[in-house]
Amino acid sequence: MSRTLLSTVNPPHRLLMGPGPINADPRVLRAMSSPLIGQYDPVMTDYMNQTMALYRDVFRTQNEATLLVDGTSRAGIEAALVSLIEPGDRVLVPVFGRFGLLLCEIAERCQAEVIRRDIEWGQVFTPDAIEAMLRETRPKVLALVQGDTSTTMCQPLAEIGALCHQYGALLYTDATASLGGNAFEMDAWEVDIATAGLQKCLAGPSGSSPISISPRAVEVIRQRASIEAGLRGDADAAIAVNHIRSNYFDLGMILDYWGPSRLNHHTEATSMLYGAHECARLLVEEGIEAAVDRHQLHGDAMVQGLKGLGLSLFGDLDHKMNNVVGVYIPDGVPGEAVRQTLLNDYAIEIGTSFGPLHGKIWRIGTMGYNARKDTVLTTLAVLEQVLRQARARVVAGGGVGGANEVYAQGGRG
Amino acid sequence: MSRTLLSTVNPPHRLLMGPGPINADPRVLRAMSSPLIGQYDPVMTDYMNQTMALYRDVFRTQNEATLLVDGTSRAGIEAALVSLIEPGDRVLVPVFGRFGLLLCEIAERCQAEVIRRDIEWGQVFTPDAIEAMLRETRPKVLALVQGDTSTTMCQPLAEIGALCHQYGALLYTDATASLGGNAFEMDAWEVDIATAGLQKCLAGPSGSSPISISPRAVEVIRQRASIEAGLRGDADAAIAVNHIRSNYFDLGMILDYWGPSRLNHHTEATSMLYGAHECARLLVEEGIEAAVDRHQLHGDAMVQGLKGLGLSLFGDLDHKMNNVVGVYIPDGVPGEAVRQTLLNDYAIEIGTSFGPLHGKIWRIGTMGYNARKDTVLTTLAVLEQVLRQARARVVAGGGVGGANEVYAQGGRG
Repeated sequence: MSRTLLSTVNPPHRLLMGPGPINADPRVLRAMSSPLIGQYDPVMTDYMNQTMALYRDVFRTQNEATLLVDGTSRAGIEAALVSLIEPGDRVLVPVFGRFGLLLCEIAERCQAEVIRRDIEWGQVFTPDAIEAMLRETRPKVLALVQGDTSTTMCQPLAEIGALCHQYGALLYTDATASLGGNAFEMDAWEVDIATAGLQKCLAGPSGSSPISISPRAVEVIRQRASIEAGLRGDADAAIAVNHIRSNYFDLGMILDYWGPSRLNHHTEATSMLYGAHECARLLVEEGIEAAVDRHQLHGDAMVQGLKGLGLSLFGDLDHKMNNVVGVYIPDGVPGEAVRQTLLNDYAIEIGTSFGPLHGKIWRIGTMGYNARKDTVLTTLAVLEQVLRQARARVVAGGGVGGANEVYAQGGRG
Repeated sequence: MSRTLLSTVNPPHRLLMGPGPINADPRVLRAMSSPLIGQYDPVMTDYMNQTMALYRDVFRTQNEATLLVDGTSRAGIEAALVSLIEPGDRVLVPVFGRFGLLLCEIAERCQAEVIRRDIEWGQVFTPDAIEAMLRETRPKVLALVQGDTSTTMCQPLAEIGALCHQYGALLYTDATASLGGNAFEMDAWEVDIATAGLQKCLAGPSGSSPISISPRAVEVIRQRASIEAGLRGDADAAIAVNHIRSNYFDLGMILDYWGPSRLNHHTEATSMLYGAHECARLLVEEGIEAAVDRHQLHGDAMVQGLKGLGLSLFGDLDHKMNNVVGVYIPDGVPGEAVRQTLLNDYAIEIGTSFGPLHGKIWRIGTMGYNARKDTVLTTLAVLEQVLRQARARVVAGGGVGGANEVYAQGGRG
């Protein structure tokens, strides 16, 4: 293009019913368009403190160390793992989907001794199975995804933190896809570090990663702490021997920036912080339990609607996340062509899938701002038409009918 | 707060005349409030391609590998260094301020053999001095800040890339503070990797880091490339032996996401991309040379205004960045109290300083959206009043008068 002046962005309307990102709540976008202020302006540091307090409610924790990592959800994952793991540390990763593989990969790059345990995609691990692994392998860190969008499964975590602590391990969990739409109890479940993103049930854009860190994990991180050379006083120690192998993801430094000492690290991404603040406010205002109930209601409605159309669903439905469902592409139906028709003719996006499920299932999300009755019914109505056009056998009216039965029972919408 | 519902963010008016962040151009904030679309929506991938093309203009390069790293400017720095440096690699860092120290620190965390060469804060290195260091130390990478806001200095780079290549080194430069407000010629100066941020002369918020990578540097990175386990086909190699020690900052993977193969990595931070796109459009629309001229004009006006007030300026003014100036806090004047008065009574923010300059100089910026005549004259008018109130000797009308002389000569504003 060289000198051509392209136009400003002007994205078309889309109803994003895939596994995320989804449409941001307009309140979040409005908050993000607020004017900037300086990073040490008292108003800004107050917003940072408010954000910490709001995310304590979202994560259901008393952890002082609850803040944002500036980057997408995988920035939060890497910050957690690189801040905990020293080269040679043993890390156990039970894998039930693509994002478990990501945890393995990031831990390997931290030079951990990674012990990977796989289960068939579409299943989750029992606490007994995880206890057996802990007993056998005695890891420093158990890294476990809560909700893996690649399979739609939600790993039960309630007993895992206590098991980890019984066997001397720390529990890290990636709650990116699940937080806000499925029960999550940081303190009651004894989770040591949890990370998330805004682009799923939190109804915001990708680009900021909420994180909460238990006092036990803070202690581990503090033993590896450094103060940047440009900020170090004479009394401060030089870089620690077992220093964290990243500056950007050094949670000790990030804590010093968010904490009372306010030691400069990065320049906080102000607009993303405004957005993250509003995402948490939406959830706290609604009530976390009410938000989870809402995701369950609309998730159930989507499930019953898809069944009502005569489609088969993927995986162990007793352990499905509330906010996303995998549905088998009917025999003979061209999966990608159907997705294109949905997008081009109806402006509705549903998801494809990764790895062993690629070409076999679609993934349909009902989360955040889009966990609503109108989005569920519209998607089912449209899907019926598009499937019929693709010569699939569908039950006329079965999608909307199935969903409406759930709404009639649930009495909400 | 527990259950208290805090209000949505509603930041007060501020005129941000520090070393950045500065007020974002309202066009950038409007672009950022646009609705989200899916990450593989053809409209989104087209916006990604446009963003690459726009930043090629901004960096003055033909580099295909020109894109965004999702994080603040130091995310771009770390992505560049961790993707180039293998443990044990020799990295030369000529340090002329705090951000040179940051390059040392990040290179150390990459386990480089770091060779640091210091110069007094307020000076820059001559090409001869840098050639002597290259000849002596033969590094794999020369890491050099272009504009270091801690000292306001702008390191001349025009000859450095060719020198690096003569001695078999790659040139990385951190152009966060300088890009868009000072001449920068990626290709003509043979820079191998340059990174930036939006919150300085680009008139946007912190949170996205534009980066450009020469074919020579891409080749180095490609030799260390990995494909994520969850995405790897049977024919793809396993993780490389000399693999990049970060997943999030693996520029090979980030290139695969931005390139034709569109291999999923992170979920692009859509709103920040919209903002980065508009930041580049503003500069391309104005013309890069015109933008640099504008920064020079208003920077000169600020310099002459401060001199006109009778204040002393910091450092080698022949090598000052156009967009920021260091001014000595007059004897007996309480520097922090003056800054507080400026903020509280006039809603104007100027900068404090780091390290050896802390408590000695203020830093005043004229950059991006705030490189304007009204902001310069207002700041000078207010500074005169506040200094007088603090019992400093100032020349009445000298600030605005000095600036207006520059505007009279420059014939613009």
